[in-house]
Amino acid sequence: MIVVMKLNATEEEILAVEKRLKDGGLSGHLIRGVNRIVIGAVGDERQVIASLGLEALSAVEKVVPIMKPFKLVSREAKEMPTIIEVKDAKFGGEHLAIIAGPCAVESINQVMTAAEKIKAAGGQVLRGGAYKPRTSPYAFQGMEEKGLEILQQAGHEYGLATVTEVIDQPSLDLACRYVDMVQIGTRNMQNFRLLQAVGKVRKPVILKRGLSATIEEWLMAAEYIMSEGNEQVILCERGIRTFETYTRNTLDLSAIPLIKDLSHLPIIVDPSHATGSAKLVSSMAKAAVAAGVDGLLIEVHPEPCKALCDGPQSLDPEQFATLTTDLRRLAQAVDRKIS
Amino acid sequence: MIVVMKLNATEEEILAVEKRLKDGGLSGHLIRGVNRIVIGAVGDERQVIASLGLEALSAVEKVVPIMKPFKLVSREAKEMPTIIEVKDAKFGGEHLAIIAGPCAVESINQVMTAAEKIKAAGGQVLRGGAYKPRTSPYAFQGMEEKGLEILQQAGHEYGLATVTEVIDQPSLDLACRYVDMVQIGTRNMQNFRLLQAVGKVRKPVILKRGLSATIEEWLMAAEYIMSEGNEQVILCERGIRTFETYTRNTLDLSAIPLIKDLSHLPIIVDPSHATGSAKLVSSMAKAAVAAGVDGLLIEVHPEPCKALCDGPQSLDPEQFATLTTDLRRLAQAVDRKIS
Amino acid sequence: MIVVMKLNATEEEILAVEKRLKDGGLSGHLIRGVNRIVIGAVGDERQVIASLGLEALSAVEKVVPIMKPFKLVSREAKEMPTIIEVKDAKFGGEHLAIIAGPCAVESINQVMTAAEKIKAAGGQVLRGGAYKPRTSPYAFQGMEEKGLEILQQAGHEYGLATVTEVIDQPSLDLACRYVDMVQIGTRNMQNFRLLQAVGKVRKPVILKRGLSATIEEWLMAAEYIMSEGNEQVILCERGIRTFETYTRNTLDLSAIPLIKDLSHLPIIVDPSHATGSAKLVSSMAKAAVAAGVDGLLIEVHPEPCKALCDGPQSLDPEQFATLTTDLRRLAQAVDRKIS
Amino acid sequence: MIVVMKLNATEEEILAVEKRLKDGGLSGHLIRGVNRIVIGAVGDERQVIASLGLEALSAVEKVVPIMKPFKLVSREAKEMPTIIEVKDAKFGGEHLAIIAGPCAVESINQVMTAAEKIKAAGGQVLRGGAYKPRTSPYAFQGMEEKGLEILQQAGHEYGLATVTEVIDQPSLDLACRYVDMVQIGTRNMQNFRLLQAVGKVRKPVILKRGLSATIEEWLMAAEYIMSEGNEQVILCERGIRTFETYTRNTLDLSAIPLIKDLSHLPIIVDPSHATGSAKLVSSMAKAAVAAGVDGLLIEVHPEPCKALCDGPQSLDPEQFATLTTDLRRLAQAVDRKIS
Repeated sequence: MIVVMKLNATEEEILAVEKRLKDGGLSGHLIRGVNRIVIGAVGDERQVIASLGLEALSAVEKVVPIMKPFKLVSREAKEMPTIIEVKDAKFGGEHLAIIAGPCAVESINQVMTAAEKIKAAGGQVLRGGAYKPRTSPYAFQGMEEKGLEILQQAGHEYGLATVTEVIDQPSLDLACRYVDMVQIGTRNMQNFRLLQAVGKVRKPVILKRGLSATIEEWLMAAEYIMSEGNEQVILCERGIRTFETYTRNTLDLSAIPLIKDLSHLPIIVDPSHATGSAKLVSSMAKAAVAAGVDGLLIEVHPEPCKALCDGPQSLDPEQFATLTTDLRRLAQAVDRKIS
Repeated sequence: MIVVMKLNATEEEILAVEKRLKDGGLSGHLIRGVNRIVIGAVGDERQVIASLGLEALSAVEKVVPIMKPFKLVSREAKEMPTIIEVKDAKFGGEHLAIIAGPCAVESINQVMTAAEKIKAAGGQVLRGGAYKPRTSPYAFQGMEEKGLEILQQAGHEYGLATVTEVIDQPSLDLACRYVDMVQIGTRNMQNFRLLQAVGKVRKPVILKRGLSATIEEWLMAAEYIMSEGNEQVILCERGIRTFETYTRNTLDLSAIPLIKDLSHLPIIVDPSHATGSAKLVSSMAKAAVAAGVDGLLIEVHPEPCKALCDGPQSLDPEQFATLTTDLRRLAQAVDRKIS
Repeated sequence: MIVVMKLNATEEEILAVEKRLKDGGLSGHLIRGVNRIVIGAVGDERQVIASLGLEALSAVEKVVPIMKPFKLVSREAKEMPTIIEVKDAKFGGEHLAIIAGPCAVESINQVMTAAEKIKAAGGQVLRGGAYKPRTSPYAFQGMEEKGLEILQQAGHEYGLATVTEVIDQPSLDLACRYVDMVQIGTRNMQNFRLLQAVGKVRKPVILKRGLSATIEEWLMAAEYIMSEGNEQVILCERGIRTFETYTRNTLDLSAIPLIKDLSHLPIIVDPSHATGSAKLVSSMAKAAVAAGVDGLLIEVHPEPCKALCDGPQSLDPEQFATLTTDLRRLAQAVDRKIS
Repeated sequence: MIVVMKLNATEEEILAVEKRLKDGGLSGHLIRGVNRIVIGAVGDERQVIASLGLEALSAVEKVVPIMKPFKLVSREAKEMPTIIEVKDAKFGGEHLAIIAGPCAVESINQVMTAAEKIKAAGGQVLRGGAYKPRTSPYAFQGMEEKGLEILQQAGHEYGLATVTEVIDQPSLDLACRYVDMVQIGTRNMQNFRLLQAVGKVRKPVILKRGLSATIEEWLMAAEYIMSEGNEQVILCERGIRTFETYTRNTLDLSAIPLIKDLSHLPIIVDPSHATGSAKLVSSMAKAAVAAGVDGLLIEVHPEPCKALCDGPQSLDPEQFATLTTDLRRLAQAVDRKIS
């Protein structure tokens, strides 16, 4: 890290900083500029930067970290991209996979119909929410275990892998018995207890980016999971909160090449939640594939206008089939394979 | 709610909307404009608006809610301001209270010293984190139960009420045994399981605004707590995430008069986390009092530069004493009392 | 528009609103709900909504506009997409065009070399800044008229159309003598005098989205230009300001399908300024084409590391040639033609 | 500045950076860390940082500026606060002044009435827009020169200084003949030609913060004005654009202590435009005074509900009189004087 001293820092104050760096296992290199003194600290700053307390010293103007705070998730830790396989789905490398299904599991009929159409259109993973984190306490909160059973049954019937969102330890325990992958939702991206819990299971985890999470905070959340031993983390960009109100959120597709530069983990995109509008979903799904995404998470509902949750952003089965045809053509044009 | 139909909506499509409104217990009133048909729906829309699926109908351009989605927390539900009392502290009405203490409980000495100084300067509540949600899995995560014991002991010794952050059911269960109030942190504002859990205890709850939570989402989070039976909710504004990088977050003080207009619940402000910088804390604390705040949450550490967490934003005891003197003078000028 | 009255509005206050609507040429339709009275106003609200003063009435809770405020730029005003042609470049319909060149014109050699490479790689338009709006008064401000001459000469030599940014009436007057298209930069998107000025010339105008402009404000800026008589407006998405700091701005690609839904005007994307980083430019350019963009604006510098302005985001000629090859393949996969 | 090299940077690449630094008049100091090489550059980086092109070198990971980019506006350049006096108004030091008036000049009667009430309530400066930058080309654009005449007449009649917004060179030329101060609006904060133009006149300039301008960009805009010779710049915080929609913008009051720490220039606050709602204006005006503001800019209209522009945020004369009484009491409690 670099410690920038204030204009009027005394020799004593400089020594105090150097002593702290030394106590933290770092060595300080002094650069005397025309107007300012700057101290470069050499050593692994990541473990100690938060606890050295340098910024609370009155003679310190600012502390600039040099190393990125994440380790296990970083490209520097693992050169080759991580490829995660779940049944027929492959996320990463030359492969990309399509996850589709309704926002919420509502009935056996609804999920069976969805699964049939998704399989027919070439999807690999079936999604469906059994535990729904809703903004209002008065909204439908999900079918819970009954929903998980339905999901498992439909996955089995149509040869699809399955994924569902978990919201606490009990829902995680249950989900692990019924589905192939679990998902951490955007509102729980910094629910560190939940991150630690999914870090202890042996299922792939989809980690959605928080509504206002920076790239760095998102990777640190993945680091929480990996530091508990679970190496199968798939990052999912789903739109960030901005001032724009025409779309529900602003899909940040530049996260795709950026994450690939910083990390070895696969990244997928959820254009349905990001835009909140079915008419924008297909364009954004195509854009994501062209940008190099490793998978897509798309809401498909047999009858979007009867959905209990997020109908306006769901594709109907026909729109979804058209989209997958387009995506296959596009994947080929960028030398990728849909699983 | 108001349903705006697309330009080319057919009579059949209009009938379909009216039927759905009727199924949802609402009655539809048609307004035929020059260019557009608009349907006004009469009735309590809050329970049904999410499940009617109107926006997924291709003939519907948009749906505009008219009623605010919150009930129990609203000013319309309760005209008079809620006043929450915890030992000597009173939040609301003509009273405001000062909560102070270190970000994290680090040792018995640290907390005892802090408590002594806070009491002497006229604070009413002692804060200290025993469970710290940290961005990095490698940072200090808190002393857990041992920390709660220290907090209780210091509160007892110096006659201060106590408050601490809870992060899951086990930490909530423990906290309820040791402290007088519990706090939901910014990253857990939409951890709905945790909201439901604190809704079931009989301790006042400080609910921090999420980093990118709208006023409406924040009030809906409070609604989760109240709908479980706990009516002692104190809202805490602590800065929102914006593009500005000179401050850690942007303190939204307009939330104070806005919340008072929309809700009967008391609102406090945390200028320490909002700004991330000790030199801005006092100005923002004063501004909050002038704007009508019901309390303040201020980080005070006996030696900020030795803090294990958030030192740069902590006041030292002397700065805190100067601030409380200024605040008393200011409170008088706006006809408020510091507890 | 819809006027939502406060809970306790009196009959007299309702009559006052109805009178104002009538004075504004609108007719009011009353809907008496369970808790609230809502008045629907029928007629062309766009001319009068701002001057009726309804929101300043104490009995009015809020006013919800129903019609979009833009007219000439809207899809409703013109069903078919506008195609803008400049020499070999076609923006819109099945065509897309590539604009490339250095951020700033620095010398005749630099621009000639850039133009040669851009032509060879299949670009249609040469860009280069002669007037540079810079954050610092101490940074290079552009070669002004000399730069325009260089641009004209290079365009002529290599058969490329040319475009440059204008910042006031004098620079616009000069630019019109030397180049084929003019550009309004992001910081001037709401410089209404400048919008009116380019509305009076007969050159195509590229209108960059403001750093924090909503889709609606952007279209209203285009409306300013069209309302002065210039119908050749090309919208350019170039990233919006968000909390993320890893990229310079956040490229909002969902603007592509959204603008196409709302307007008949062509939309292009500038991935160079949006990301601020050469290594992200190609991915984002490809994503834009897959999403249906009508053109790209890409910074190309013969030697990026010697650029006087924005070197880190410029492609070198080789990277640019590789990109255009990729883009042609991709355009084909989405049934588009690069001019 | 600090140059962080990539992990695999070669000796040759390091030499290349050092050579560039030398060419820019800086000397480089090498720090060899465990994982990375960092080069500290000593000298005045502000003139050269943008043109060195270091970030475009493939071996450079990032460049971290150490010095702040502004000079003339900085506290380091001038220790004592700048106090700006216009007739009875004093901005800065122990003084604060109140500017009030309607958003737009609409008629001689309206402005005369407003001026009378403002004077009576203890305001010092009369504001009124004669050139209105409006989002829609179809909205009222101001009375232009006729409006300036009215403003001058009212100021003269009631002994108030006057201020109005300018939007280009012609409006600036006219304004300088009629009013005492000029104002740059939020949409023109980075209209650098206009900044240079007001830098050449000898009237105080109120510089509003851009909707999404960082503190640093704002100070750089002030630097543009000062670098042309005009030292009478008053910064005006008026809310920034965020995701929150309950208020028009988010008033960033932490800008007050921050600007005072970074700069010697006075800072005022406009709570009317920031909140967009009369019921929030008084609280935010009081908060600003408690935070140490040097002045306020408040919209006052004799009949807000008849205003041609921004009625919902205007106070009526009675509300304004109550507010100034409250502000005087508050100013005393923080040892400030209202002019």
